[in-house]
Amino acid sequence: MAKKPSIPKGTRDFGSIEMARRNYIFNTIKSVFQLYGFSQIETPAMENMETLMGKYGEEGDKLLFRIQNSGEKANTPPEKGLRYDLTVPFARFVVQHREEIQFPFKRYQIQPVWRADRPQKGRYREFYQCDVDVVGTDSLMCELELIQIVEEVYKRLGINVSLKLNNRKVLAGIAEYIGEPDKLVDITVAIDKMEKIGKDAVNAELSEKGLSSQAIERLQPILELQGGNDEKLQVIEGLLSQSEIGKKGVDETKFLLTLCKQLGVELNIEFDLTLARGLNYYTGAIFEVKAQDVAMGSITGGGRYDNLTGIFGMPNVSGVGISFGADRIYDVLLELDLYPNDMLDSTQLLFVSFGEQELLYAQQWADKLRKNGVRVEVFPESAKIKKQMTYANAKHISLVAIVGENEMNKNVVMLKDMQTGEQKEVTFEELVAHFN
Amino acid sequence: MAKKPSIPKGTRDFGSIEMARRNYIFNTIKSVFQLYGFSQIETPAMENMETLMGKYGEEGDKLLFRIQNSGEKANTPPEKGLRYDLTVPFARFVVQHREEIQFPFKRYQIQPVWRADRPQKGRYREFYQCDVDVVGTDSLMCELELIQIVEEVYKRLGINVSLKLNNRKVLAGIAEYIGEPDKLVDITVAIDKMEKIGKDAVNAELSEKGLSSQAIERLQPILELQGGNDEKLQVIEGLLSQSEIGKKGVDETKFLLTLCKQLGVELNIEFDLTLARGLNYYTGAIFEVKAQDVAMGSITGGGRYDNLTGIFGMPNVSGVGISFGADRIYDVLLELDLYPNDMLDSTQLLFVSFGEQELLYAQQWADKLRKNGVRVEVFPESAKIKKQMTYANAKHISLVAIVGENEMNKNVVMLKDMQTGEQKEVTFEELVAHFN
Repeated sequence: MAKKPSIPKGTRDFGSIEMARRNYIFNTIKSVFQLYGFSQIETPAMENMETLMGKYGEEGDKLLFRIQNSGEKANTPPEKGLRYDLTVPFARFVVQHREEIQFPFKRYQIQPVWRADRPQKGRYREFYQCDVDVVGTDSLMCELELIQIVEEVYKRLGINVSLKLNNRKVLAGIAEYIGEPDKLVDITVAIDKMEKIGKDAVNAELSEKGLSSQAIERLQPILELQGGNDEKLQVIEGLLSQSEIGKKGVDETKFLLTLCKQLGVELNIEFDLTLARGLNYYTGAIFEVKAQDVAMGSITGGGRYDNLTGIFGMPNVSGVGISFGADRIYDVLLELDLYPNDMLDSTQLLFVSFGEQELLYAQQWADKLRKNGVRVEVFPESAKIKKQMTYANAKHISLVAIVGENEMNKNVVMLKDMQTGEQKEVTFEELVAHFN
Repeated sequence: MAKKPSIPKGTRDFGSIEMARRNYIFNTIKSVFQLYGFSQIETPAMENMETLMGKYGEEGDKLLFRIQNSGEKANTPPEKGLRYDLTVPFARFVVQHREEIQFPFKRYQIQPVWRADRPQKGRYREFYQCDVDVVGTDSLMCELELIQIVEEVYKRLGINVSLKLNNRKVLAGIAEYIGEPDKLVDITVAIDKMEKIGKDAVNAELSEKGLSSQAIERLQPILELQGGNDEKLQVIEGLLSQSEIGKKGVDETKFLLTLCKQLGVELNIEFDLTLARGLNYYTGAIFEVKAQDVAMGSITGGGRYDNLTGIFGMPNVSGVGISFGADRIYDVLLELDLYPNDMLDSTQLLFVSFGEQELLYAQQWADKLRKNGVRVEVFPESAKIKKQMTYANAKHISLVAIVGENEMNKNVVMLKDMQTGEQKEVTFEELVAHFN
């Protein structure tokens, strides 16, 4: 026997069970997106290199997979690369199809992306992203709807989550307030690490980045801010009263939280001044969602950006979006044992038969059951009963219909519950009724 | 404004409407696969080059897209390539996971494949394949179920189709009968072209390939064979009475056609001796499906193979499978205008509002409607009515709920049918009732 074949490192095969679980997650998310009128798009796996290069920083450029036609000479620079995320292709899509798109454009996209990262536990070179965005309006109604979507998706999946909320304009206001408006990026990168490394390390980093000790001192009450959302907003509103952009950020946050109340959103939302998500293109609200009953990191995140399409020469298109982390959601559901027992795509009944005539009889019953919407398999050979039962067990099929000469003569099947072991003769009508 | 961005030639963006149609096709096909107990798998976009090379002939090797990590030197030979079809990755999957798989293994797979073909009308460098296979049994029940699946899928899609059926063993028997058993491949390749190039050209090609004139003469009655399936089978059974393999092929075909009758299959099935589908790995039944009301070529095809996994060192695993051609099915449905008007994923109602208070009121109604399962959008700004109506029209939303001060005060909305232009005041209960 030859060497067992394998797949490239960092990639995965998904077997039947994994796919049933993944479909459960994606179908749940999609059905909620559709309730809010988002429609799906797909973009090609390969983009032109000029579309991809320079969009993810120097580090990102190095992680792009490049594609060569077999016909091309080995040292021709590759013109194409694999999609690195869904954001840049989406921006490219909006600009390329601007004439056909009706704005505001509400789209979702669920496709794999590829990164030549060093593979390690939980980090893959091929993984799915699941993004939902509205572009072409700066209405805070969109932020509201995304929060409602988060609430509904996780309610349907049965995961308790909390959502952290911040606003990039508030962060800009803070930078102004402490007298370092030009150091906004350094400040957000540093305070984003509060939870991980603690206040002293954050202050050390800020000092290293050249912030004056006076500025760092002014920042301390903000880093230490405690209390409920209203309390925090009141304090920060007072501090930022001299900053135009800061006031705007506070107003947006207050309005959004009020909207959530008016719409009866029950999700646990925490206004968190240390949330920055490190992504420099955010310009307004910033979101991050974590599961409450399991340590997993962020499972959904996003925010508002005012210039996504600017990189392709179409400025001033405001948008807001979030991304669901499918792999992490998969693990959370597994850890909390939240997958439903009866996945919608699994077989409900297996026919097992003892001879050629019985096999045909089973096929005829199966055909009629399928016309009643029942998901049925017929073991395709009249093999030994043990082999057929092993198949039912391995595939977690909970009901088996056994057909021998006796059953055929009486025009019934012997229905066996694989969990309890109980069995009884049933007519076709009784069998159909079983599934209604 | 910068140069408009673009995508690599031969690839496509799928916008909302295309995706709704594609989802309609794939969901229809998947729901039928699931009725028969097939479960989904996915394999990585990239496979090791050694998995791909030599599997598609010299021509195919040249059409592989190769992948390089950005980190690698330009002249390192690429270790990875993009999936060229779903068959080779499936064979690799079966061999790699043989210990975990329960046989017979019934799987379907719907994923894109990539070929560095010269792009032309209807031929893309990225396209989806949709394959369904059973491996690990040679039972003809599997052929039966695939035919039932074809019938059910096209019934649900509303496309009238006919299925051509042949058997590779019958073709082998014919090669024996005319005294050229070693020329089986040349013979099948040539007679496969009967419909396209006609009998004389086929004979010329056979002569060119070195078939004796005596052999070609003996072949003529077979090429000219007319009549119904039973008639043809009777004639060919007589001719092949001295060929073991030929008799086996005839028996299989007769048994399969009998099974179809016994199961009430209504599909138009034609036994066609000139059907070969050029694929040398078929060893039993061969299928090809065409739409009857539109000229399009094959929209589904497949057959039985006895040694798919042999290329990876796991011999004697018999399987049978078919592949649905999504792009062609897409075009057939479009040409025959068979897409349903109300796609399951499109917005059912748009709220249009005249002020901030009205917008909030609309959001509250929308929220309650969504909890009733209605797919609702709220135009996120209280923009000019014309802008909002244009949006509804562009997105083909057939119902609009208009909210002004008057409606708010009366606790109603003005419901407008965008097709007839009719409008009337409705309460929330009346609105919900509209969608049930």
